[in-house]
Amino acid sequence: MPARLVLRQNRKRRLEQGHPWVYQSEVQHVDGSIQPGDIVDIVNHQGVFLARGYANPQSQIIARVMAYQPDATIDASFLTRRVEQAWAYRQRFLPGITSCRAVYGEADFLPGLIVDKYEDVLVVQVLSYGMERLLPAIQEALVQVFQPRGILLRNDVPVRRLEGLPLEKRVLYGEVPPVVEIIENGLTFEVDVFEGQKTGYFFDQRENRAAIRPIVQTGTSGEGGAEVLECFCHTGSFTVHALHYGARHVTAVDISESAIEVAKRNVARNGFAGGVDFVVANAFDHLRSEEQAGRKYDVVILDPPAFAKSRHAVESACRGYKEINLRALKLIRDHGYLVTASCSFHVSPDRFQAVVLDAAFDAHKIVRLVHWAGAGKDHPEIAGVDEGHYLKFAIYEVTSR
Amino acid sequence: MPARLVLRQNRKRRLEQGHPWVYQSEVQHVDGSIQPGDIVDIVNHQGVFLARGYANPQSQIIARVMAYQPDATIDASFLTRRVEQAWAYRQRFLPGITSCRAVYGEADFLPGLIVDKYEDVLVVQVLSYGMERLLPAIQEALVQVFQPRGILLRNDVPVRRLEGLPLEKRVLYGEVPPVVEIIENGLTFEVDVFEGQKTGYFFDQRENRAAIRPIVQTGTSGEGGAEVLECFCHTGSFTVHALHYGARHVTAVDISESAIEVAKRNVARNGFAGGVDFVVANAFDHLRSEEQAGRKYDVVILDPPAFAKSRHAVESACRGYKEINLRALKLIRDHGYLVTASCSFHVSPDRFQAVVLDAAFDAHKIVRLVHWAGAGKDHPEIAGVDEGHYLKFAIYEVTSR
Repeated sequence: MPARLVLRQNRKRRLEQGHPWVYQSEVQHVDGSIQPGDIVDIVNHQGVFLARGYANPQSQIIARVMAYQPDATIDASFLTRRVEQAWAYRQRFLPGITSCRAVYGEADFLPGLIVDKYEDVLVVQVLSYGMERLLPAIQEALVQVFQPRGILLRNDVPVRRLEGLPLEKRVLYGEVPPVVEIIENGLTFEVDVFEGQKTGYFFDQRENRAAIRPIVQTGTSGEGGAEVLECFCHTGSFTVHALHYGARHVTAVDISESAIEVAKRNVARNGFAGGVDFVVANAFDHLRSEEQAGRKYDVVILDPPAFAKSRHAVESACRGYKEINLRALKLIRDHGYLVTASCSFHVSPDRFQAVVLDAAFDAHKIVRLVHWAGAGKDHPEIAGVDEGHYLKFAIYEVTSR
Repeated sequence: MPARLVLRQNRKRRLEQGHPWVYQSEVQHVDGSIQPGDIVDIVNHQGVFLARGYANPQSQIIARVMAYQPDATIDASFLTRRVEQAWAYRQRFLPGITSCRAVYGEADFLPGLIVDKYEDVLVVQVLSYGMERLLPAIQEALVQVFQPRGILLRNDVPVRRLEGLPLEKRVLYGEVPPVVEIIENGLTFEVDVFEGQKTGYFFDQRENRAAIRPIVQTGTSGEGGAEVLECFCHTGSFTVHALHYGARHVTAVDISESAIEVAKRNVARNGFAGGVDFVVANAFDHLRSEEQAGRKYDVVILDPPAFAKSRHAVESACRGYKEINLRALKLIRDHGYLVTASCSFHVSPDRFQAVVLDAAFDAHKIVRLVHWAGAGKDHPEIAGVDEGHYLKFAIYEVTSR
């Protein structure tokens, strides 16, 4: 019999609403003793079974739900079934997909586990003690479902420290090449799975990258493709998409020289020889100098890193978002488009839209919302679990007021 | 010189934020005299020009903005340019489109004017006194841009009374057949432009109808198409899409016998002989009896009419939404899908999602948000103008808790 976490009577019915986390403060007492990663039963104050999960008494999140069935056995075959379901979901909504986020933690009913599939290489992040203890079974499940060439553990994420886990980066299984070439929307990109940010690539914007097609294939003049400025271009994923969809010219700006080098290779890899200028610069400075030079574009794309890493940073982050959006708006020709994103979880969708509206007010522009989206289909969201909703992505048509 | 509406100093800077309405309460005084429909200049308390628009002293909305240029002449060539821009926008985002909302009032910078294009027939709604006086010029613009076979005025909308305008329904130009056959997502539908609801068809769900493809082409068993229940099926647009995308069987329910007759013809028109049951019934009753009979479906679609026609009706509307979503959730097999919509403007997106979550709680289900959208690309939204955001559309994956 696993230990039981008995929940308080006066708590929010979060668990019954599908949220898979139990906080220390919700627990009245523990029946039995628990070690980090132990499987436990979660029961209400009357002892009624609610869920089975794994516990970590060292973490603020004392337990995370793995199953709602009292007879669930959390083993390799259980994990295989869950991974199969996650993969079936991707195949349903992203037919023919070969590279994507294959397991998105809580949202795939596998809390604390991230699996990114880069063609035949899997990159895994284990974010909780419970999942760490299940690692041999996870490996078994992943090998069975995907038959990968290799599995890399990218456990170099600070959040592991909250669980009392060490940071590490190592090959878990098979062979992992330093650079993997992946396919997205029919285009190819190189991914540095060992040294790239997070697990190496940001899959969450896949559908948003495809959404720029109608705005870049024809410029505001109505003849030929659009003239595009991309700030924070990183390894060039939006830039390559813009060229592919018919942009006449793209200026791709990033502060990182090494990111620009990868972006150059990604452009060349997809067969585009000219039509791109690469600029190593701070995006804020570059936008300002473009404004002073009187430059105009049909489309400006802003896909910055998270400006607000914490709740306290929201106000300064919003000033940053306003600044770049304001400057971008001033560079856009009438009936051109602003493509703007924020991946700061702490900046709500409403707040982000308000910031853009505020920037439009100052820039004497009217902005018409053409497209609004979050992360792609491989980042599902359990209703009521806000933690997963971090990405805001918008396309606005811009006219002068 | 047109008369001038001088705005108060202490007002919200709504107009400067792109909102095209001026309320009576925002006006300090009027320089000159205005008749309903007159073109006026709108200036701030210091006399600085803000916009040119048309006025109606009989309406709470005393003026609506037509242009932000002080030299704008509001005539047939001005209107032609605006209609051309609106049409270019549809052609950009809906390539090859032949039937759609061609002009969406305020959001296309033509406040008070709705134009729905049903292949070569245009159906027009004029919702303000200013637009009514511009009708000859509007007709000229529409004929020039679209060369339609006919234009029908569907001015049988109660909101016209607020402007002091009569209700009417008449052919404005050319010849208008009683039934028009339109193409949507490659399928054909008959539209009764004279007697159908609003202008005859709801274009706003075009992209959402297409979005059901992945959930109906394979059922929860993984073999063959999905078994689908559509409540509030009206003239069968979701039902026809479901069949087209591979549903094995659809049960289509509507309380209106005449709507069901049209739905039957739309199914036949697209070459589907079997695989559909039509039921004339109240959706609430039908959902309840299906539950009692222990029926299960892979997909349930709920696209009801607006339950909340006013702010006061929100609470009872939400009870209604909860009831149908709760009953639908109980009918859905594990890993099946709930397709649910609300077109009640007064029920906010957050509120609607909370209602579904509440229903899931009661139904002991966990719901995962797969798809979230508003109205389609032919219903653009000016940022900051909330009035246009009425449609909420969601697809949830459903599992038991």
